Amino acid sequence: MSKKSMLRSAKGRNDHPDNGRRAFLKNGLVAGGAAALGAAAAGAAQAAGENVILQKQDWRTYLGDGVDARPYGTPSAHEAHVIRRNVEWLTADPVSSVSFTPLHELDGIITPNGVCFERHHGGIAEIDPTAHRLMIHGLVDTPLVFTLEDLKRFPRENKVYFLECAANSGMEWRGAQLNGVQFTHGMIHNVMYTGIKLRHVLEEAGIKPNGKWLLVEGGDASAMTRSIPIEKALNDCMIAFKMNGEALRPEQGYPMRLVVPGWEGNMWIKWLRRIEVGDQPWHQREETSKYTDLMPDGRARRFSWQMDVKSVITSPSPQAPVTHGKGRTVISGLAWSGAGKISRVDVSVDGGRNWRSARIDGPSLSRSVHRFYLDIDWNGEPLYLQSRAMDEYRNVQPTKDALRAVRGVNSIYHNNGIQTWYVAKDGVTENVEVS
Amino acid sequence: MSKKSMLRSAKGRNDHPDNGRRAFLKNGLVAGGAAALGAAAAGAAQAAGENVILQKQDWRTYLGDGVDARPYGTPSAHEAHVIRRNVEWLTADPVSSVSFTPLHELDGIITPNGVCFERHHGGIAEIDPTAHRLMIHGLVDTPLVFTLEDLKRFPRENKVYFLECAANSGMEWRGAQLNGVQFTHGMIHNVMYTGIKLRHVLEEAGIKPNGKWLLVEGGDASAMTRSIPIEKALNDCMIAFKMNGEALRPEQGYPMRLVVPGWEGNMWIKWLRRIEVGDQPWHQREETSKYTDLMPDGRARRFSWQMDVKSVITSPSPQAPVTHGKGRTVISGLAWSGAGKISRVDVSVDGGRNWRSARIDGPSLSRSVHRFYLDIDWNGEPLYLQSRAMDEYRNVQPTKDALRAVRGVNSIYHNNGIQTWYVAKDGVTENVEVS
Repeated sequence: MSKKSMLRSAKGRNDHPDNGRRAFLKNGLVAGGAAALGAAAAGAAQAAGENVILQKQDWRTYLGDGVDARPYGTPSAHEAHVIRRNVEWLTADPVSSVSFTPLHELDGIITPNGVCFERHHGGIAEIDPTAHRLMIHGLVDTPLVFTLEDLKRFPRENKVYFLECAANSGMEWRGAQLNGVQFTHGMIHNVMYTGIKLRHVLEEAGIKPNGKWLLVEGGDASAMTRSIPIEKALNDCMIAFKMNGEALRPEQGYPMRLVVPGWEGNMWIKWLRRIEVGDQPWHQREETSKYTDLMPDGRARRFSWQMDVKSVITSPSPQAPVTHGKGRTVISGLAWSGAGKISRVDVSVDGGRNWRSARIDGPSLSRSVHRFYLDIDWNGEPLYLQSRAMDEYRNVQPTKDALRAVRGVNSIYHNNGIQTWYVAKDGVTENVEVS
Repeated sequence: MSKKSMLRSAKGRNDHPDNGRRAFLKNGLVAGGAAALGAAAAGAAQAAGENVILQKQDWRTYLGDGVDARPYGTPSAHEAHVIRRNVEWLTADPVSSVSFTPLHELDGIITPNGVCFERHHGGIAEIDPTAHRLMIHGLVDTPLVFTLEDLKRFPRENKVYFLECAANSGMEWRGAQLNGVQFTHGMIHNVMYTGIKLRHVLEEAGIKPNGKWLLVEGGDASAMTRSIPIEKALNDCMIAFKMNGEALRPEQGYPMRLVVPGWEGNMWIKWLRRIEVGDQPWHQREETSKYTDLMPDGRARRFSWQMDVKSVITSPSPQAPVTHGKGRTVISGLAWSGAGKISRVDVSVDGGRNWRSARIDGPSLSRSVHRFYLDIDWNGEPLYLQSRAMDEYRNVQPTKDALRAVRGVNSIYHNNGIQTWYVAKDGVTENVEVS
């Protein structure tokens, strides 16, 4: 198999005069090498005045900080590279942009709150929870206003769900673009939510017979608004106030957000302040000009809410190359489906010619990411790594080319195509496509 | 039911001249009131220069921080009160002490990494992962030394386990002492670990036929050492390098710790640097003068490794009083067992005379905490709240008096007695005992 003949490489696409992106890719590659990582972490830590710590090699001879030093703890200075990253050229301004989850550095299925990807449209609202109110009005028997404390009196539930932006992997529609799983697939996180069923507050207000849709609105400067069909709202939507045990983070909608299991992240309204019940969808900006899928014939597919079955190998990947040479090697990744549980993940090391079933490890929960592993004995020859997920309803993840054949390349949303990483003999890994 | 006749109250015990503890209890109570909480959070936030944020009430008119502002995120300034706390009078020095998980502020089953309780004996070692080594020697065919990267090449697994200090609730042996679930039960946390089976590295070294015990040693200044029977080591112990998806925190043993599912936390050696295989236990300090249970006859019970079935109501509790008056009220708590899964939790509102089954919500995983709820319509009369857990092997949580009848009050370890909170008409809640 010749690399040259079968590849459409992200690396080959770096030669155009897009300096912003080239700089970004270069930084991504530098951050990818294990040796470079150590140096970067040391540099960051030294900049933060941590050089004394890093110079201590044998901690059996030092007394460290006591229990009063860190009332709220943070990661080791040696982990300073495990952060959300944004892409400067992607949007006009950071207040309406996205930062990406460092998937290549994580394991298991829980995304730590500190590195959950962010997407906001008017910056992070920093709301005082005691001043915040949620109003429910429109086609209801009794319009109601709730405080956070009011909501905490309803029966609570705890659910682990993935939240994926509809635009995740969106830049890959036109070919391998970004050299890092953080950037190709990092618009996803997976946390345990604590909250209440949306149904409880809707029933308290009393939905009139012609109430068929909700308009949900956020309390930030963008006043993000989406229409949600009443069936979904009554079925499994939640109003969440905690993530991974503690209060929602400001960038995730503190003090309360909507949870719309399995559906695109844009609908999970943050800083939730208003729910209006109506008899038809509202066709707001974020569900017409945005978050619809432009098809090859120029028409737009709408109401494509559910996230498709999808997977990606998180390590090895361009930011997490193989540094240990041949032999025992762990291939690890994530799989998820907006329909339910993942039933199977296959992994190929030869660009999709042959497949082996990966081992799914850890809790298998509906509409949560699943962690998979394939343990191989690498012979040191180049690998074309791919993963392919199947869910409990036998939905199967397609190739990118199969997707393009149906949907064209106009859209930036709902790309669940199979991802390929090329691992060279020296372990350096890059984003490619096989044809 | 007269409060006076049936109670042995923690409040009543505050009148002795232990100023250190009195100050602590007072602080605990002040932090407990919801109004006070808001004021405390605002105070802390203002001290941190966040007063501008707190003065903004309507975030629809402000652009907030962009996605480049917080590469690693932290909680809202309004959550500044959700922190680990330590008790100054408890130990001679903070480098050999404990900080407690704020259980009263958390929900679900995942403890966020930032507030997982700490217990260390020589301060927090801040080890450089690239310099760290794990040695395996003693009764093995081939002594081995592993780097962190070496360990990451073995097959990985992900498990959610509670880690409870054997001394959790230890101060309650002699009666209701501490006015807050953070302090009575906060030496526990529950995270998802990623790591490898300890068995893999032991098999790689090859255990000789007479190898029956392990000595495991930490790389900190206390060189914490414990003996572990080989059956447990080969059965389900892990070497973990991640918690809740990201690297272990320094205070939890970064870059690697032992995981000993269901057994007392002291055995979960942090900063793991050495494993020696031997033919008998070592009888180190931390398994003779400490972490044995002094019985009424003056003899010490040893090898009491497994944590017993236990539960506690986290809200309402002294630091989380009822502030909304009578009516719809959520009673919430945690239950766990070192033997396996929790099968049932009962809750009493009348000091153990009558019991109702609570609702267990969220994943039910072996040797993980379980979250339970009981939704009541509070009539505004005083409550004597208790919870009683049962595990899948029909172990049942005992009363404190039943425990004392067998074990006396000399020990500070393995107290899994039923906890009682007294909720007054005004919602103020305190630690009491019913007799």
